[in-house]
Amino acid sequence: MVSYADYFARNRDAHLSELKEWLSIPSVSAESAHKEDVRRAAEWLAESLKRAGLEHVEIHPTAGHPIVYADYLHAPGKPTVLIYGHYDVQPVDPLHLWQSPPFEPEIRDNKLYARGATDDKGQLFLHVKALEAMLREEGTLPVNVKFCVEGEEEIASEHLHPFLEANRDKLAADAVLISDTELLAPGRPAICTGLRGLCSLELTVRTASTDLHSGTYGGGVPNALHALVSLLDSLHDSEGRVAVEGFYDGVPELTEEMRAEFAKKGIDEEKLRQSLELDALFGEAGYTFAERVGARPTLEINGMYGGFQGEGTKTVIPCEAHAKITCRLVGTQDPQDILDKIERHLCSHAPAGAKVTVAQREKGRPYTIDTAHPLLRQAADAYEAVYGARPVFTRDGGSIPIVEAFSRLLSAPVVLMGFGLPTENLHAPNEHFHLENFDKGLMTIVDFLRRF
Amino acid sequence: MVSYADYFARNRDAHLSELKEWLSIPSVSAESAHKEDVRRAAEWLAESLKRAGLEHVEIHPTAGHPIVYADYLHAPGKPTVLIYGHYDVQPVDPLHLWQSPPFEPEIRDNKLYARGATDDKGQLFLHVKALEAMLREEGTLPVNVKFCVEGEEEIASEHLHPFLEANRDKLAADAVLISDTELLAPGRPAICTGLRGLCSLELTVRTASTDLHSGTYGGGVPNALHALVSLLDSLHDSEGRVAVEGFYDGVPELTEEMRAEFAKKGIDEEKLRQSLELDALFGEAGYTFAERVGARPTLEINGMYGGFQGEGTKTVIPCEAHAKITCRLVGTQDPQDILDKIERHLCSHAPAGAKVTVAQREKGRPYTIDTAHPLLRQAADAYEAVYGARPVFTRDGGSIPIVEAFSRLLSAPVVLMGFGLPTENLHAPNEHFHLENFDKGLMTIVDFLRRF
Repeated sequence: MVSYADYFARNRDAHLSELKEWLSIPSVSAESAHKEDVRRAAEWLAESLKRAGLEHVEIHPTAGHPIVYADYLHAPGKPTVLIYGHYDVQPVDPLHLWQSPPFEPEIRDNKLYARGATDDKGQLFLHVKALEAMLREEGTLPVNVKFCVEGEEEIASEHLHPFLEANRDKLAADAVLISDTELLAPGRPAICTGLRGLCSLELTVRTASTDLHSGTYGGGVPNALHALVSLLDSLHDSEGRVAVEGFYDGVPELTEEMRAEFAKKGIDEEKLRQSLELDALFGEAGYTFAERVGARPTLEINGMYGGFQGEGTKTVIPCEAHAKITCRLVGTQDPQDILDKIERHLCSHAPAGAKVTVAQREKGRPYTIDTAHPLLRQAADAYEAVYGARPVFTRDGGSIPIVEAFSRLLSAPVVLMGFGLPTENLHAPNEHFHLENFDKGLMTIVDFLRRF
Repeated sequence: MVSYADYFARNRDAHLSELKEWLSIPSVSAESAHKEDVRRAAEWLAESLKRAGLEHVEIHPTAGHPIVYADYLHAPGKPTVLIYGHYDVQPVDPLHLWQSPPFEPEIRDNKLYARGATDDKGQLFLHVKALEAMLREEGTLPVNVKFCVEGEEEIASEHLHPFLEANRDKLAADAVLISDTELLAPGRPAICTGLRGLCSLELTVRTASTDLHSGTYGGGVPNALHALVSLLDSLHDSEGRVAVEGFYDGVPELTEEMRAEFAKKGIDEEKLRQSLELDALFGEAGYTFAERVGARPTLEINGMYGGFQGEGTKTVIPCEAHAKITCRLVGTQDPQDILDKIERHLCSHAPAGAKVTVAQREKGRPYTIDTAHPLLRQAADAYEAVYGARPVFTRDGGSIPIVEAFSRLLSAPVVLMGFGLPTENLHAPNEHFHLENFDKGLMTIVDFLRRF
């Protein structure tokens, strides 16, 4: 049998150089100024898939960012695996908190630092290189493989959804394989069996037709910032529960069995608190951290601005204020229904003199897979063979909005085989990828595909 | 007798060209990038004073922006008038709302548009040109005159205060004359007899040591924006009253006489509401708009920011949030005491997991002058002679923090002889100065100085 360990060791420097090249392309899907960079990242991936030996490599334009397809269908009678990932990345601000520039990848202490290093270019790259290795060393693959990689995961996969609907036959598969989740901790693998849904909105509050002098008008007119903080503060009660009417409809209560499963993650809340340099954790009363994040819905303000933000003082009464809000959803919470409820709440709580506008954005449903599925056992065996530890079945608090759609539209189980770590600052400054999991990830993927 | 009306008509174009030149210098005192521009604006003024015939023109450097001094002391036995003003201006954002660039002065519909047009370069310029006119036409002045003009009025006059203390003899005067206030409306002059004090602070809320992913952590950790909105919302009750303990100590209750004086302003609240395009005015219950602005203290959020402000969505839990707050003070409210009370309130209301930092900034006391003072009658006579209408004695809601200091340190009455209008967008986009009051202002100042 081929020693893939040797192969990957021999090619490690070349692989990392290649990945760094990809990570240098600032494919920030949320910012239109980066549209061209996103396209370049797609082209880079397509070339990389071709070099790996994949066939029918195609870049599908969409009204947004393109989708990259490729396949290798030379294992008749064997199952077909569809590998999904995304080549777009989150915005980078606040830029001044990065120790090295986000698009100048740098290895420090066996960690690769760059925006996208772990979410998701780094993890997707493992699949490209695992398949390339098998094709080079054995000349063939043990299964049929398809790639479907998008550039809009960080902005809610708007165009992937219709693409899936329109290409069910082309994408048909027996399983979907995704690496965009996390181990529990170094050396402690995990398979994610549930993801929260996601919905988002932008809130604008307007008062007068112009900013006003706080001397001439102060005390006699509404202030858009006062109205905004009053509205936003009304969204939670003092115990951290969302105060929007009907928000918790469809949220399943935790069973004792689920609580036991969450407890297995063995999160030390005091250590977690210290590692985040927090005075205190905070969340819904009656739940542990793991339960709050894994099984409870949230409403978070992600950004907020209005009035004077420069140096010094400006004695102004701002006439406009803005907030960005996202919710994580669980159970049968429906994103459209939740957005409508929040919008109703905001409009009905508008203070005197404040005009409220709500723009609804993303809408992604929650997803779960039965922990008894045979594919999950095979994935667990592969992890165990490489890591020497049996993975835990977890529910991650994150959202990969398209997972539920893949599962529903292709009628296929989705295996979430992640190699990130919870401490890798995804969506934050100094995102990085531990190279130990780069090495083990390659081996685990090869092992998993051979078990099919 | 000399016809100053003819003189000013003859020189109008030249005067406006000169003023436009001064207004083109972006002397934004709050922004360090404009430090050099602020200095250029001081030099421009010094040259203008020299050309007008003033003597001993000096630019006094300070640790901040310079102070311009000049005098003309050739009226032995006559009183001395100290003219104060400021050549610095407010920041210009939001820039996109300006119809013409803020530092490219433009006359439209007999109004001069530019940052600083009315606050305060335009109004101060009237004094320079009024004195120049008298010196050219009569060769002398009916009183002794001193100029003391600063570049830090919009940032709380930090260095003027010690300058006044150190130069009491040099600045000694029988009256201080300032044009930095407003008429009631076109053709309806007013003399301001009271100004609110001003104090300011910046609030920072921090939670974790870094921004966190709202999937991985959402629901289990504090969010700096949630903490900020909760803190800011706690500063007012739902009736618009400031909810900080002891805030209203030292605020005099309105007498029936004062209420009658405010009613004289004849503010039509419905018209005001419409002109500001507001759904509703808003303020403390039990007071009219004029009373709220003229005689009641305020606490306003002037700016606020945190988290993601770019295009699209970013699923982040921000670890840092900021707000800028100013208060307008009345009666015997002491700025230091008020800032301490707010700081105590904010620190004691900090939600779980939120670290609160308060930076205290400006501190200026309220000011009032007795409406029976003989100088006010002379000023009223001058207005009446030019405008054909007797001015009303008003209390403006604004603050000129140095007025109280001038009055106290020089033991001199301060006459606030303003030529602005409440609709001139000071501190906001599209600031402008009605040229009708440019013309009448020149005449009123000449008339007033001749009555001394």
